[in-house]
Amino acid sequence: MSTEINKHPHRRYNILTGEWILVSPHRTKRPWQGKTEKNNNEKRETYDPKCYLCPGNSRAGGETNPNYTETYAFENDFPALLTEAPIKDFDNGLLKAEAETGICKVVCFSPDHSLTLPLMEVDDITEVVKLWKKEYQELGSKDAINYVQIFENKGAMMGCSNPHPHGQIWSQKSIPTEILKKSRHFKNYWDENKSSLLGDYLKQELELNERILTKNEHFVALIPYWAVWPYEAMIIPRKHYQHIGQLNKEEEKAFAKIIKKLTTKYDNLFETSFPYSSGIHQIPTNGEDYPEWHFHMSFYPPLLRSATVKKFMVGYEMFAGPQRDITAEQAAQNLNALSETHYLKQ
Amino acid sequence: MSTEINKHPHRRYNILTGEWILVSPHRTKRPWQGKTEKNNNEKRETYDPKCYLCPGNSRAGGETNPNYTETYAFENDFPALLTEAPIKDFDNGLLKAEAETGICKVVCFSPDHSLTLPLMEVDDITEVVKLWKKEYQELGSKDAINYVQIFENKGAMMGCSNPHPHGQIWSQKSIPTEILKKSRHFKNYWDENKSSLLGDYLKQELELNERILTKNEHFVALIPYWAVWPYEAMIIPRKHYQHIGQLNKEEEKAFAKIIKKLTTKYDNLFETSFPYSSGIHQIPTNGEDYPEWHFHMSFYPPLLRSATVKKFMVGYEMFAGPQRDITAEQAAQNLNALSETHYLKQ
Ligand SMILES: O=P(O)(O)O[C@H]1O[C@H](CO)[C@@H](O)[C@H](O)[C@H]1O
Ligand SMILES: O=P(O)(O)O[C@H]1O[C@H](CO)[C@@H](O)[C@H](O)[C@H]1O
Repeated sequence: MSTEINKHPHRRYNILTGEWILVSPHRTKRPWQGKTEKNNNEKRETYDPKCYLCPGNSRAGGETNPNYTETYAFENDFPALLTEAPIKDFDNGLLKAEAETGICKVVCFSPDHSLTLPLMEVDDITEVVKLWKKEYQELGSKDAINYVQIFENKGAMMGCSNPHPHGQIWSQKSIPTEILKKSRHFKNYWDENKSSLLGDYLKQELELNERILTKNEHFVALIPYWAVWPYEAMIIPRKHYQHIGQLNKEEEKAFAKIIKKLTTKYDNLFETSFPYSSGIHQIPTNGEDYPEWHFHMSFYPPLLRSATVKKFMVGYEMFAGPQRDITAEQAAQNLNALSETHYLKQ
Repeated sequence: MSTEINKHPHRRYNILTGEWILVSPHRTKRPWQGKTEKNNNEKRETYDPKCYLCPGNSRAGGETNPNYTETYAFENDFPALLTEAPIKDFDNGLLKAEAETGICKVVCFSPDHSLTLPLMEVDDITEVVKLWKKEYQELGSKDAINYVQIFENKGAMMGCSNPHPHGQIWSQKSIPTEILKKSRHFKNYWDENKSSLLGDYLKQELELNERILTKNEHFVALIPYWAVWPYEAMIIPRKHYQHIGQLNKEEEKAFAKIIKKLTTKYDNLFETSFPYSSGIHQIPTNGEDYPEWHFHMSFYPPLLRSATVKKFMVGYEMFAGPQRDITAEQAAQNLNALSETHYLKQ
């Protein structure tokens, strides 16, 4: 909190999307009489006979899961995208639509129903990283797939309908809005400076050391200057890589390690299984070169004050733009004050 | 549902923001085992001694509400924006911030604690419209206020912490992201066609008559072709007005009438007090002319399947772009099949 501006209402600029975030540091004293959420810290069994993701169980679509022992990926039984769209694009005056195709997959992180990423061993998270890599490359190599979105919705608060540790991959023909936005800003910076926008930002953050959460030889986790969600964080590879396919063995493990560290801090913050949506932003798989891109993984967690009080992105945020109360620096301070050992293992 | 494309996965283009929405019409059959919300249909007293918005009660900031009998606006006791920001803009390499100032107000719609917009009389909603007009003009006439965002967060699900019927107004120095986006698209269309983008869209929708919900002499309510939220709707004035300050007496009442009709349909859909965030998008108040703009009011309601199951805008939606399951046409059909009389009054 070195600068005066952090103490008064201000707007911060997101260099990756070109959008502004309203920050109201004085507003944390606001009392909360609104909705509280259920605390998400029930203990689970390692195997649940009713879980459609546990090994050997049958799924809604009729299939049976193999007795997998590490990770397991399969095509979503209720996919938002299908490989066929037997329709033509539609253009009628001011109504405009396009056929869309794709493949949606579910990625089980572990056969153990009771785990989450922070509770898994580094070697087992490394298997998840390897699977993401494999899926990114396999799906991305298909002609009809031009973008692969890897993500996780963790916790009921984030619309996750099954607590078994898993994420998803939606891959599709067109390149989504958020990627187009970031591409534009990476490209502009690259054309002007011939260096990575996120790489240069990372250098600056490492020097300032105000928003850094944790780092290892290959990755840094930090609260971005323009964070929207209260404890939003970003994992950035030190090397200027465009996609996770470029990670070598050692880097895969370093990625797993930093994911474990960050999510452990998250769980420790309110001593709860911290809900979030996370996602990896990387280059489209349309065969074009994107030397300007720098892949990164972001975490958008909704909790604000406790395990049961979240930040609502509603009226003002939907109609004007995002707003936050605690600053990115406060968020980093709060997380950095916590133990690196998971509270359930202390 | 006249076109084939509506039956298969497709993307629709939002002419106002330039962004795409993924539509998965085949996906409504997906079972839901995830989070359910509390049904929000408890009956309330007309006066609650503990409510900080009821007439005569005292507020958290120490003030006492007058014994208001119609509507009542006051400055938020915990505002996100303040009139003073004793700081300079901040520009340090890739970190960029600006001081931001503004005024945040709370607008009580009625002294009666038990009401909501659909349960209020048209004449009383007309008073709300008049107050919005007055606030838009008064706040907007200040030198330091260049944009006025009128909105309502309705229901605990939308982060509303007090069920007393009320909305908010956040007004500020800078022009928010969502307004800049729409301005660009209004302007491009105006430069090419010398007519209102939304006016021309409205004409097309009235001819097609597939997504129209209700209309009167001065306003039309419809599900926009590019709707994101399951039952998202938009109220558009037939006249090409830039802001609500231009409404005459008769139009104020027509606006109140269509708000009542739309929100009554909403409540009837799942026989619950339907949660939503609504907002009015209109021209900035920086003194510039925006002949291309066409004001409108939008409703973003989260409920999808029932009074307790909402749509989650999470992983894919946050990292790639919005996705919906039911089509805009299905949403219009479902709403149009309902009675125009509120279920509590039938
Ligand atoms: O101002 P309120 O009602 O306390 O707060 C509500 O609306 C605000 C404006 O959309 C949001 O920033 C808050 O997250 C929400 O809880
Ligand atoms: O695919 P799931 O887990 O059934 O569904 C969840 O994630 C999807 C992708 O972010 C969202 O569209 C859904 O709203 C959410 O409930």
